[in-house]
Amino acid sequence: MKRCVAVIETAWEPDADTHLAMLEAALREARTRGAELALLPELVFLPYFCQNPSREPFAWAEPLEGPSLERLARWAKTFGLVIVTTIFERRTAGLYHNTAVVLETDGTLAGIYRKMHIPDDPGYFEKYYFTPGDLGFVPIETSVGRLGVLVCWDQWFPEAARLMALAGAHLLLYPTAIGWNPADPQSTREQELDAWLTVQRAHAIANGCPVVTANRCGFEADSSGRTPGIQFWGHGFLSGPMGEYLIAPEHTQNRIAVAEVDDLAMERTRQAWPFLRDRRIEAYQNLLTRARESPPGRIGPNFPKVPDSR
Amino acid sequence: MKRCVAVIETAWEPDADTHLAMLEAALREARTRGAELALLPELVFLPYFCQNPSREPFAWAEPLEGPSLERLARWAKTFGLVIVTTIFERRTAGLYHNTAVVLETDGTLAGIYRKMHIPDDPGYFEKYYFTPGDLGFVPIETSVGRLGVLVCWDQWFPEAARLMALAGAHLLLYPTAIGWNPADPQSTREQELDAWLTVQRAHAIANGCPVVTANRCGFEADSSGRTPGIQFWGHGFLSGPMGEYLIAPEHTQNRIAVAEVDDLAMERTRQAWPFLRDRRIEAYQNLLTRARESPPGRIGPNFPKVPDSR
Repeated sequence: MKRCVAVIETAWEPDADTHLAMLEAALREARTRGAELALLPELVFLPYFCQNPSREPFAWAEPLEGPSLERLARWAKTFGLVIVTTIFERRTAGLYHNTAVVLETDGTLAGIYRKMHIPDDPGYFEKYYFTPGDLGFVPIETSVGRLGVLVCWDQWFPEAARLMALAGAHLLLYPTAIGWNPADPQSTREQELDAWLTVQRAHAIANGCPVVTANRCGFEADSSGRTPGIQFWGHGFLSGPMGEYLIAPEHTQNRIAVAEVDDLAMERTRQAWPFLRDRRIEAYQNLLTRARESPPGRIGPNFPKVPDSR
Repeated sequence: MKRCVAVIETAWEPDADTHLAMLEAALREARTRGAELALLPELVFLPYFCQNPSREPFAWAEPLEGPSLERLARWAKTFGLVIVTTIFERRTAGLYHNTAVVLETDGTLAGIYRKMHIPDDPGYFEKYYFTPGDLGFVPIETSVGRLGVLVCWDQWFPEAARLMALAGAHLLLYPTAIGWNPADPQSTREQELDAWLTVQRAHAIANGCPVVTANRCGFEADSSGRTPGIQFWGHGFLSGPMGEYLIAPEHTQNRIAVAEVDDLAMERTRQAWPFLRDRRIEAYQNLLTRARESPPGRIGPNFPKVPDSR
């Protein structure tokens, strides 16, 4: 099966009508260019409010089946597209999630994924806003295949990608919101961006599974004025199963890029590099631990004294 | 703690005296240039005999405390270097391993690691020769820190790197033997090399832990004549904890490259990007499974119906 994927990267536009019109136009264009699946950035309907912890943004949270989902469902049906992004989900009073939603081409909700790994550092106070997801790592079945939807910070965790791949994902998707601190020097920016691209392409390679990412772009000020804001760095991409770019990363604002992935490439890559065949699952138990505090003592020349602490 | 690391990449030289003299000279030079730890390629004392399955190479296997270890111990003591490579270990009749050995600066054996993930594909018939390791993923304590020694094929498995990092490794080390099929086009070669560099640098990034790799280089014929042989691609490197090159990859034959890694960089990187803080260990159980054969059914719009199958 082949699927044609669109990466849509938009800058936050404070005027709601303009913002929505821009997104709608982007989806229309993606469809015109052949896309069957469109990935939008994280929290696409909101400014990146996590730059500082404050009560006001909770007013923007909405139940899963709220106006954002309704809008996405209408677009999905209108354009015949599977659409993926995240919303600020109000599950109940005091319980909020950063929730990925997957809309089917008929406007139904194919499934959701609640962001499992939650970051928290200056400029990204997400632990304040979002309860860690409780749905685990379960791909979502759609008309364009089984989608391993993950969100932003998840992209740094090989465990998340692996779990989705083991569950049969045909594609890993990362709606995301990451950018530079404008006060950082160019060398730091390049290193951060390169690390971000590298770790995600490595998920494609280690799992023989394509990866697609759509990031926010444009500058967003910190409303508290405590930090210099975030220059979201765009650079979304589509990688094939060997880490090769099918859509190369770019820092173009309001970008629509379209390319095709083919399950056959995944099948052939996994046959050539059969990592899934060789995993030592009986020796991975410690992946379920936080850390192993007692490293083995230094051993002398009288082998065997190596402790078997798999 | 800082440690000065040497990557030594040598081509196989059929004349034993020449080969050993070359290795000894390389270690001496590494020490002269300040190295405290030297990483040699996989199976450095042997041709890459796994190109075809045949009984003859078993004659080269030796007990752990055999002539290879004795030679490495002498060099380690003479040069005051911690030395890491792998040997073809004969554990008993019919039981052989590809075993990494770590020699301390006083010539004692600091520890061993038996290659856990064993490849097997045309040109690399390692499952024929090597029993998968049974010592798990345990770093080895040395005078230059806790070494997370892994071997070649292990480099494609994020699980292996993570387990070593969780056990407190200060550095991940990969003695390795990987190369191009000379019959493959340039584009395939570039893609393979890039994937190999990317997946290993991603271990540094995902774990905030430096990674060093030493690969074989030079051409080795397939003695059976069935394949066009292997052009080992060199390109060993040292990566800092953000995936930045401290020793950049190069395809120079018989290369000695030296650079320093600093635990402070690791500490700071992990503070800036605290992935270990945020792992969802309670949701990783399925990492211990081979695959999840029953993907959840496609769900409709009546949320919540998402199965919780973490």
